[in-house]
Amino acid sequence: FGRLKAKAADVGKGMKKIGQDDPRIIVHSVKVALALTIVSLFYYFRPLYDGFGPSGMWAVLTVVVIFEFTVGATLSKALNRGLATFLAGSLGIGAEYLASLFGEKGEPIVLGFLVFLLAAASTFTRFFPHIKKKYDYGVLIFILTFSLVAVSGYRVEKIIELAHQRLSTIIIGGATCMIISIFLCPVWAGEELHNLIALNLEKLATFLEGFGGEYFANSEDGKSAALSKDDQSCLVGYRSILNTKATEESLANFAWWEPRHGQFRLRHPWKLYLKVAVLVRQCAYQIETLNGYINSELKGQGTSELETKIEEPCTRMSSESAKALKELASALKTMTHPSAADIHVQNCKTAVDDLKDALEAFTLGKSDLLEILPAVTVA
Amino acid sequence: FGRLKAKAADVGKGMKKIGQDDPRIIVHSVKVALALTIVSLFYYFRPLYDGFGPSGMWAVLTVVVIFEFTVGATLSKALNRGLATFLAGSLGIGAEYLASLFGEKGEPIVLGFLVFLLAAASTFTRFFPHIKKKYDYGVLIFILTFSLVAVSGYRVEKIIELAHQRLSTIIIGGATCMIISIFLCPVWAGEELHNLIALNLEKLATFLEGFGGEYFANSEDGKSAALSKDDQSCLVGYRSILNTKATEESLANFAWWEPRHGQFRLRHPWKLYLKVAVLVRQCAYQIETLNGYINSELKGQGTSELETKIEEPCTRMSSESAKALKELASALKTMTHPSAADIHVQNCKTAVDDLKDALEAFTLGKSDLLEILPAVTVA
Repeated sequence: FGRLKAKAADVGKGMKKIGQDDPRIIVHSVKVALALTIVSLFYYFRPLYDGFGPSGMWAVLTVVVIFEFTVGATLSKALNRGLATFLAGSLGIGAEYLASLFGEKGEPIVLGFLVFLLAAASTFTRFFPHIKKKYDYGVLIFILTFSLVAVSGYRVEKIIELAHQRLSTIIIGGATCMIISIFLCPVWAGEELHNLIALNLEKLATFLEGFGGEYFANSEDGKSAALSKDDQSCLVGYRSILNTKATEESLANFAWWEPRHGQFRLRHPWKLYLKVAVLVRQCAYQIETLNGYINSELKGQGTSELETKIEEPCTRMSSESAKALKELASALKTMTHPSAADIHVQNCKTAVDDLKDALEAFTLGKSDLLEILPAVTVA
Repeated sequence: FGRLKAKAADVGKGMKKIGQDDPRIIVHSVKVALALTIVSLFYYFRPLYDGFGPSGMWAVLTVVVIFEFTVGATLSKALNRGLATFLAGSLGIGAEYLASLFGEKGEPIVLGFLVFLLAAASTFTRFFPHIKKKYDYGVLIFILTFSLVAVSGYRVEKIIELAHQRLSTIIIGGATCMIISIFLCPVWAGEELHNLIALNLEKLATFLEGFGGEYFANSEDGKSAALSKDDQSCLVGYRSILNTKATEESLANFAWWEPRHGQFRLRHPWKLYLKVAVLVRQCAYQIETLNGYINSELKGQGTSELETKIEEPCTRMSSESAKALKELASALKTMTHPSAADIHVQNCKTAVDDLKDALEAFTLGKSDLLEILPAVTVA
């Protein structure tokens, strides 16, 4: 029993931590519950119930399935679902009509054949990259609705009325979700993407800031004792960048569905963010390697003459490029032209030139920085 | 009209390509269609229909929603759905009973309150990392079923019979999917993961094999004209490794659900694969940097004395580690102990020692290789 109590305390702590890390998760939970409760009203109040009957179930189902964390994801699912239901419903009724021409015996065979054909074809299209990216959920609902309509029509006489009822309850469910997710503490995928990229730029800057000092401190002391744990965790902040590709892509995908909000237009060039993200990630790969140098075989080799020679330009280069990156990050945040960054890039280039004569091994991280600039200024 | 024709031809080509790249996609589409057609039989044949009535719809719905590409994913969804439906159904009936104690007026209020509470709590638990990983779909279905049962019970009298019918149709749908996905040309997530890791090791080896020659050829010619396009595309094969993390993790996740198959036990240590994958990816980061050297500022700088000195050990090291990696990949494929690889690692270490006196910049890729070994031998 004592262990159970400890476990419960653990879970409680975990919950508190999640809530504190991102309070929007709590808000989101409440929003989902609210949407669900509103939609269930269709069952509780007789006048509404009489209008829709048991089809009201579909409103509940829709809310549970399409309400996602970001506005973009919710809109994408809602629109996909609505459109796919409409299309598949119409096709299903058509299939029903076609099958009925074959008489009592032929009908189930024709319907079964049609369901088989459409299910196979639609499942195949789900593997098209473009469809998988934007319309995967729509195709799923298309198969679902078509099979249901084609199949249930065989028994239910008033199929058009039923289809109409279902479509309207799905629209009600979808609209409830869209309204609540847009107007009640919205979480915009576009904004998330914007902040994520700016944060990633800052993380790179933090690393470069610390790197110059760290690297040479190590060499001089001959041991890494100078590297406190605290510094280290701050330095490896860039590591998270290595694996944000999937997150960035899905956010950009969802952002595409979002209407104008805040400082973002309807057709904001979200793809450029992905381009910047790719460059940032390439930069992070280089930094992963640089970080390897700090921790690996260079340790304990003492200060060579070469190192003393390159120390000054290296440190300067690293801190200048850190400044340039910070400048870029803040320019991205405020969406202004990063003019101040140009100076730092110039300084950085001078430092690189100084360094080149001594050693080339270092300059790689920089070439990427120069590539980032044009992409950001376009955005 | 001409453009439409061209577009249709494009789509056709795209379809053919997808089918050729992975014929299992076509097989998968046919399997889904087959499962769906079998399940729709419940509607077509009167004796079966009389047993289940309109609840047969849930079998169709289940098949469409849970049939996934790999066996593991299908099993995970099917089991999640079955369990969640059962749990939420029981709880829903309990809530129904509890609410009925509050009389005609109080019932909808109590039910609405319970739905709100459970929906908020369940949505919150979906953000727990552990639950998100394995039971996300189950929680979704839990909310869905609970709301449906709690809400529809208010109108439908024979709620237990209905719940029973729904549960059995869902089980029928789920069982159909599981049987077809396991016994008809199964695609095992575990096997996919196994092959992916082996392929990634091979890609690293291919790069290292070509790298030594490439690097020094470049330096000597002073230009990269020697680098044919064909070689290059073969060298950058490792790039795909940089972004397979998400794929690997979901495959390992699904593999956890799979029963014994082929050479894999029920509790095969899938997590070790992920560990190897992390090391492989770190190695790929280093290689990304090495590759940068080939293409960037070292070009056109002519042959320095230092480079001539390090050429021999570098080339040897790179080809030896390539051999070691190939050995590891084939050992992983056949699941034997990679004894031959030890020799190459030894050779490689000797080469590294030779090199160390001359330059350290290169050795980094190697330290990872040594780390990979123990992890693989454990697997």
